[in-house]
Amino acid sequence: MPTQNTRLETFLEQCRQQIDAELEHRFSTSDTGPARLQEAMRYSVLGGGKRIRPALCMAAAAAVGQPKNKAIVPACALELIHAYSLIHDDLPAMDDDELRRGRATTHIAFDEATAILAGDALQTMAFGWLAEAPGVDDQVRLAMIRELALASGHQGMVGGQAIDLESVGRSLTIDQLEKMHRHKTGALIAASVRVGALTAPDVSQDQLTALTTYSQTLGLAFQVQDDLLDIEGDTTVIGKPQGSDLARAKPTYPSLLGSAGARNYLAQLLDSSLSSLDGFGREGDMLRDMAGYVVARTH
Amino acid sequence: MPTQNTRLETFLEQCRQQIDAELEHRFSTSDTGPARLQEAMRYSVLGGGKRIRPALCMAAAAAVGQPKNKAIVPACALELIHAYSLIHDDLPAMDDDELRRGRATTHIAFDEATAILAGDALQTMAFGWLAEAPGVDDQVRLAMIRELALASGHQGMVGGQAIDLESVGRSLTIDQLEKMHRHKTGALIAASVRVGALTAPDVSQDQLTALTTYSQTLGLAFQVQDDLLDIEGDTTVIGKPQGSDLARAKPTYPSLLGSAGARNYLAQLLDSSLSSLDGFGREGDMLRDMAGYVVARTH
Repeated sequence: MPTQNTRLETFLEQCRQQIDAELEHRFSTSDTGPARLQEAMRYSVLGGGKRIRPALCMAAAAAVGQPKNKAIVPACALELIHAYSLIHDDLPAMDDDELRRGRATTHIAFDEATAILAGDALQTMAFGWLAEAPGVDDQVRLAMIRELALASGHQGMVGGQAIDLESVGRSLTIDQLEKMHRHKTGALIAASVRVGALTAPDVSQDQLTALTTYSQTLGLAFQVQDDLLDIEGDTTVIGKPQGSDLARAKPTYPSLLGSAGARNYLAQLLDSSLSSLDGFGREGDMLRDMAGYVVARTH
Repeated sequence: MPTQNTRLETFLEQCRQQIDAELEHRFSTSDTGPARLQEAMRYSVLGGGKRIRPALCMAAAAAVGQPKNKAIVPACALELIHAYSLIHDDLPAMDDDELRRGRATTHIAFDEATAILAGDALQTMAFGWLAEAPGVDDQVRLAMIRELALASGHQGMVGGQAIDLESVGRSLTIDQLEKMHRHKTGALIAASVRVGALTAPDVSQDQLTALTTYSQTLGLAFQVQDDLLDIEGDTTVIGKPQGSDLARAKPTYPSLLGSAGARNYLAQLLDSSLSSLDGFGREGDMLRDMAGYVVARTH
């Protein structure tokens, strides 16, 4: 019997390969538009990445008794939204980052105009793919589109980015910091799990509620760990300059709670994330493993 | 009996009022997200504009025998996409425009980061609204979402903007210029008409094909007239500096065909746009009037 760690590694590697293959296939066979734009889109989407959101989406499908492959296209759509948000966040007018996942950011590798357009087009593509997601009916496709729109727009991810920009150089309370992260990263992580669960035509409201609690708590844990990695990690491992939040006077969990306080909070979040899955049997194991992975990751 | 001109003016004014009221209502009652972001979104969407795409959408609904009000929400979604594209097109890294519709562009009135995010969030909102469009069934909502995704992404509007950026300072053939405009402005105009027609559950493939020809020809006519206005119009009327295409060495119809040649081409496009409506009776009159309006407009 594989250890928990091996089991998760196998699952993550399988998801990553399936997602990368599906993305590669779709980028190779579709009418591609102008070459440079297409190249920038490929660069941003196919340039690696841990595919955590797709894996959460597929693990959530498994948790509600569906074959995880049923969630591949929705999972790819979530990754497109994630990739678009990274391109735009990295722009000079935003976070002004030149390095991402150990490579030049899109506006550095191409140019700023192409980066803006590539992000725009990836967002559009995500909705187009959901509207044609195979193996689910029209009602489910629309429910997924609504989830994604709510989670990624002004009430979700983009709203969180706006709060983040306003908060640079200001002191935030822990509640304000939490609100920012719930929007900026939490909403899309929660949507990843909920979209995966929607692949089950008979998913119950109770299941969705439990999975929402799981994923919102997990999203916060993800951010706390991100903040800890920023002050403790190594540039070559985390793929961006270590200490970059600090240099920009961004409020973080360690800066508000101290390192030990942040670690303690992380452990609480993990506990509460796991207990929200109590109603799920063995089919929820991948989600449980993912929670452990998110807080233990080193990059 | 009203003259053709009065009839069209009444229709356009009605559409404009209905669209503005619907947009105002939706922006006032939804959970709004961060204040500054929300303000930038409102500024960009509610700051006037001729609402040509919404009017085309509503006129197309009428052309297939539907009450034009059935198309209000889809028409608003098209306007959100149009507004987002203007915000991003005006950015310093793109066209670097400071004036639009006689007002400061969004990144001037706010800041660049807020403008990028406002555009992003407006795109998301458009898909969210289509996914909940009232009075049409799930299948129609999805068909509309697919239309919009195809027309506004890398194979449509965003692709056209990428071609446009690549073509600044280069000499284009008339075919290349046409390809650029078919993507950049034509695709969304065609989608406006097709989305309006989709409000009829029984719309035929023949009707959609005729309307596509109508709207693609109209889209080109719109662009030829835009180019002519740029060299002949007045800054205070057209709301942007006159001659700005020329100053940027952008290829235009008048620069390739001469003013007289461009006017001649415009007349041909109008003719062919109108003949594509031959299969429609009186219910197609608003589309006919719109075609006349587009080529005669002075701003």
